[in-house]
Amino acid sequence: MQFKRKDLLGIRELDVSEIEYILDLARSFKEINERSIKKVPTLRGKTVIHLFFEPSTRTRTSFDIAAKRLSADTYSITASTSSVVKGETALDTLKNLEAMKPDVFVIRHSASGAPWQLAARTTASVINAGDGMHEHPSQALLDMLTILDNKKSLRDLNVLIVGDIFHSRVARSNIWGLTKMGARVVVCGPATLIPPNIDSMGAQISNRLDQCIPQADVIMVLRLQKERQQQMLLPSLREYSTWYGINAKRLEQAKPDVLIMHPGPINRGVEISPEVADGPRSVILDQVTNGVAVRMALLFLLGQR
Amino acid sequence: MQFKRKDLLGIRELDVSEIEYILDLARSFKEINERSIKKVPTLRGKTVIHLFFEPSTRTRTSFDIAAKRLSADTYSITASTSSVVKGETALDTLKNLEAMKPDVFVIRHSASGAPWQLAARTTASVINAGDGMHEHPSQALLDMLTILDNKKSLRDLNVLIVGDIFHSRVARSNIWGLTKMGARVVVCGPATLIPPNIDSMGAQISNRLDQCIPQADVIMVLRLQKERQQQMLLPSLREYSTWYGINAKRLEQAKPDVLIMHPGPINRGVEISPEVADGPRSVILDQVTNGVAVRMALLFLLGQR
Amino acid sequence: MQFKRKDLLGIRELDVSEIEYILDLARSFKEINERSIKKVPTLRGKTVIHLFFEPSTRTRTSFDIAAKRLSADTYSITASTSSVVKGETALDTLKNLEAMKPDVFVIRHSASGAPWQLAARTTASVINAGDGMHEHPSQALLDMLTILDNKKSLRDLNVLIVGDIFHSRVARSNIWGLTKMGARVVVCGPATLIPPNIDSMGAQISNRLDQCIPQADVIMVLRLQKERQQQMLLPSLREYSTWYGINAKRLEQAKPDVLIMHPGPINRGVEISPEVADGPRSVILDQVTNGVAVRMALLFLLGQR
Repeated sequence: MQFKRKDLLGIRELDVSEIEYILDLARSFKEINERSIKKVPTLRGKTVIHLFFEPSTRTRTSFDIAAKRLSADTYSITASTSSVVKGETALDTLKNLEAMKPDVFVIRHSASGAPWQLAARTTASVINAGDGMHEHPSQALLDMLTILDNKKSLRDLNVLIVGDIFHSRVARSNIWGLTKMGARVVVCGPATLIPPNIDSMGAQISNRLDQCIPQADVIMVLRLQKERQQQMLLPSLREYSTWYGINAKRLEQAKPDVLIMHPGPINRGVEISPEVADGPRSVILDQVTNGVAVRMALLFLLGQR
Repeated sequence: MQFKRKDLLGIRELDVSEIEYILDLARSFKEINERSIKKVPTLRGKTVIHLFFEPSTRTRTSFDIAAKRLSADTYSITASTSSVVKGETALDTLKNLEAMKPDVFVIRHSASGAPWQLAARTTASVINAGDGMHEHPSQALLDMLTILDNKKSLRDLNVLIVGDIFHSRVARSNIWGLTKMGARVVVCGPATLIPPNIDSMGAQISNRLDQCIPQADVIMVLRLQKERQQQMLLPSLREYSTWYGINAKRLEQAKPDVLIMHPGPINRGVEISPEVADGPRSVILDQVTNGVAVRMALLFLLGQR
Repeated sequence: MQFKRKDLLGIRELDVSEIEYILDLARSFKEINERSIKKVPTLRGKTVIHLFFEPSTRTRTSFDIAAKRLSADTYSITASTSSVVKGETALDTLKNLEAMKPDVFVIRHSASGAPWQLAARTTASVINAGDGMHEHPSQALLDMLTILDNKKSLRDLNVLIVGDIFHSRVARSNIWGLTKMGARVVVCGPATLIPPNIDSMGAQISNRLDQCIPQADVIMVLRLQKERQQQMLLPSLREYSTWYGINAKRLEQAKPDVLIMHPGPINRGVEISPEVADGPRSVILDQVTNGVAVRMALLFLLGQR
């Protein structure tokens, strides 16, 4: 198959063969990151601009490492330091940078849908690095790659996503991706943090965490933004932790080979306990490693056009 | 001819043959930016330091892209994150960095004349990326390059510069450059924003915009800093827009091939209307594209010494 | 000899042969920084991450220039822009970045000892770029290199360190290093800024500056943090300057070939007068130049493992 897209915006619009193609390619890039000389000349002379309207260090660093290991030249523009603060629109910022002839924009924006709007107005490729509460496709791809490193297939796998589903673009991209690949997804969290339409995306809803754990092959723990408490969406962090925190006691009921995942950064002792985060079932750091490989694959596919 | 300067500080001190030489060189670099592999090894192993005492994203990014496409290594030092905040003088900051053996400093400073003072005290080359209300030579050069992409010659061309002339280093560098090259420059804006001595630089003053438009071959629209209103230099933004905003209605009187230019970032609906900024006569994004080529030319000339 | 360490954390733990080995290597790198093409392919394909939990421009830039002149790819993570602000621990930040397969971390942290704790938990190499009031080994190495550029040997040399010894990691690393190499170190400053145990490190204490100056072969002037006055550790800056400021009058008693050193950034007119800082005995900018060479040596030794 050939990958023909200009942009990589969401998991929802990808078909199964595209996802498999990206994951296969990412597997081939994983090896480069283990070498002593972690660099290939593939994107030499290409220009990648990280255009972040919302701050990020880890995702931006992961994309940046991916781009430089492919020999691209990279630039970081963040809203707080850019002309954006002078009142320029996101579109004008994009068009201005486009005139400098970049090959790929990696865009993060707090508004859901912004990367689509911007991608439609530039001839450069756009990778969505997270938009509002909508999609974070490279995260879902690295999550799928990490599961497949440990499980034979995604088909019929039971994936449990725990926490603040409502605000989570990680959850949404994973639900689109995992259900497409044949997995069963259950989401679990406080009722105030479960979006009403989530079942129409193909996920089942539960608010009985302890009933869900025994069936789960994979437990994805979401980060709890502490601000949610001030927004009255949560009683208290301690209560959240009691009801939804993933800890060793709770995992006694789990399958012995359950995978524990988290997109990071983790709040130790809130949504996940240290002994689970650092325990033998945790693949949290493998997710990070796979993130570089997945982003190399995406940059390779779009940057070579 | 041979370009013999250590520094590129202002347009005022350049002679016509130097300007032509830089523009010719920039034209040859434009082609590199259109290639699939946008990189040449010209400045490999050279060190370019962006030393910005005043924040900037677009000019810095343009210089940075220019430098990296010539294969230089680049570093960005901004006053807000540097030892400058620890009370060190600009000169000590420069001397300290000079001891690390850079080849070129790209300097922006809010004080008019600062790049000259610093250039006199370093053996490295200095490019002025904007000093106070004084000069912004790379902007004037990219503006001239953009005009010459569309007009046979600068000689006898009528250039109208509209807006806040008083605070504009873009206006000053363009007046020096354009009049040197034989163009006629008229500046137009509210009386409070026209500096008294501007005619001694070779520009004519008008405050009747609608009388100036029909003769203009080029209209350069300057960005209006919204702070000027608080400084009591303007009645209101709406009134400014009514009297000096460039919009489609006003352009009905213009020559059909008039060029609309703006150094960016634009305030849509204030000094320029969206239909003009995005219209067929606008070369605003071409200016940005030419900016990279002009800066490649400057870095090439000074970085190779 | 062979350098077998994974990390370079402190001068205290180095033996004389290791220090000499690093300084010899740094001397060989000095020459690269004088070339027209200041770049060698030694660390091509290696990843160096500057992980700064405390802000710094000059040390970070020096390490960054050193790394890029060895052809490494570099990334800067600073606490103020990173997930650290989201409540992640320093260790989680490190482990996360480690999963992206860097070769070397250059770490600065406000807590004394932090680089040791972090180094013990990562397989990547760690260079301590300054921890709390504890060590700043690359500074001491560049100081020793600078002295040896001007003096035959460190053995029996009289080195006088003046100022805020208490808060100075530069002083501590230099005391460990210089005494190891056979120099005699005297520290001098206000009693409130001399730590009680400093003599156990091998330094002598004096608070009579004018009695120490005639014997000194080297005077290291420390930066005075102006905040110390608010902390009631100093009467006033003027009084500090009168008693401990190094100026031309005071240097009349000094040996004619005394070296004046300062780790920068300098407070002109406080701890050092402009005519001394810029005078013929000052090697302050040579220290900066040597800093790049020393850091190239350290990155070379650790990055090639």
